[in-house]
Amino acid sequence: MSGEFVWRTEPRPGDPAAVREIILSTGFFHDYEVDVAVELVEERLAKGLASGYHFVLVEQAGRLVGYSCYGHIPCNRASHDLYWIAVHDTLRGQGLGRELLQRTEQAIAAQQGLRIYVETSSKAQYEPTRQFYLHCDYRIEAVLEDFYEPGDGKVILVKKVGP
Amino acid sequence: MSGEFVWRTEPRPGDPAAVREIILSTGFFHDYEVDVAVELVEERLAKGLASGYHFVLVEQAGRLVGYSCYGHIPCNRASHDLYWIAVHDTLRGQGLGRELLQRTEQAIAAQQGLRIYVETSSKAQYEPTRQFYLHCDYRIEAVLEDFYEPGDGKVILVKKVGP
Repeated sequence: MSGEFVWRTEPRPGDPAAVREIILSTGFFHDYEVDVAVELVEERLAKGLASGYHFVLVEQAGRLVGYSCYGHIPCNRASHDLYWIAVHDTLRGQGLGRELLQRTEQAIAAQQGLRIYVETSSKAQYEPTRQFYLHCDYRIEAVLEDFYEPGDGKVILVKKVGP
Repeated sequence: MSGEFVWRTEPRPGDPAAVREIILSTGFFHDYEVDVAVELVEERLAKGLASGYHFVLVEQAGRLVGYSCYGHIPCNRASHDLYWIAVHDTLRGQGLGRELLQRTEQAIAAQQGLRIYVETSSKAQYEPTRQFYLHCDYRIEAVLEDFYEPGDGKVILVKKVGP
C-alpha cells in the first residue's frame, strides 16, 4: 500500500490548512480542538524543532492525507506524548492510520523514547479510537473520571517502545 | 497565623527571582524544573491572564515566602492543574502550605473549576509530598509507572471542589 504514499517529517507552509481539513473530515473533534491542532503545526513552522512538536506526514498525489504530531514530555527523561493522529475520512479503513502510528513509534524510538502516551475520552463515541490503540498494542494505564467534564473521563493509554 | 502574612494574586516584577529562591530553598527540584517554575511567572508578567497561569502569592515583611501556580486545563470544561506550590524552607511546618493550598482551591472554585489535579513523583523522597495532599483530602487516582524514567512513576492526585 505504501507505494502510492509519500512520507515526510518536515511540515510545510501549506500544512496548517491541510491539517484543518483532515481533522474536520473526521468529525471527531470540537472546534477549539481543531484550532489547537492547527496551532501546533503553525508553531512548528515558526519555531522549528524548538517548538517541541514533531511530525509524521503522509501525502497522496501531492495532497496531505494524514499526519501525527508528537513530542517529548518536558521534565522527563524518556516519555513522549502523541498529541494528534488523524487520517482524512476518505482514506479510512485502509490501514493508513496504523502505518502512521508505526512510523511515529519508530521515530520516537529513534529519539531514545521509551514510552508513548496517548490520551482520549472515555465516552462511548471514542470506543473505535480506544480499539485502534488496543489493537496496536497500547494498554489502558489510567482513567481519570469526569476529567473533561462530568460524565466524560480521560483515558490514558501507553505503549513501551525502544530496547 | 494569617495576620502576619499578606496575600495577593497578581505577580510583580520581583517575583521571578523570589520564586527561584523559594523553589531552590526546598531542595526538592531539579535545575530544569526550577527554570520552568520561573518561566511560568515570567510568562504571566509578559502576557497577563492570556498566559493561562494563575497565582496565589504570600508575603511576610515584604518578602515573598510562598506561592502556588495553577491553570485551567486546555480543551476541558472544568478541570484545573496545580502546576506548582512551594513555601520557603525557613517557614516549613507552620501550616502555610496548607493555607496556600486552601486559598488556591477557593480561587479555582470561584472560577467554576470542579476538579484539581496534582502530579508528583512516585519516588520514596516524595512521600511527604503525597502525605501533604492526602491530608488535604486529595486522593490518588492513577499511577503511571516509569513515566519520568525507569523506576520513577507519575502519581496523579485529584480533589473535587465547587458545588
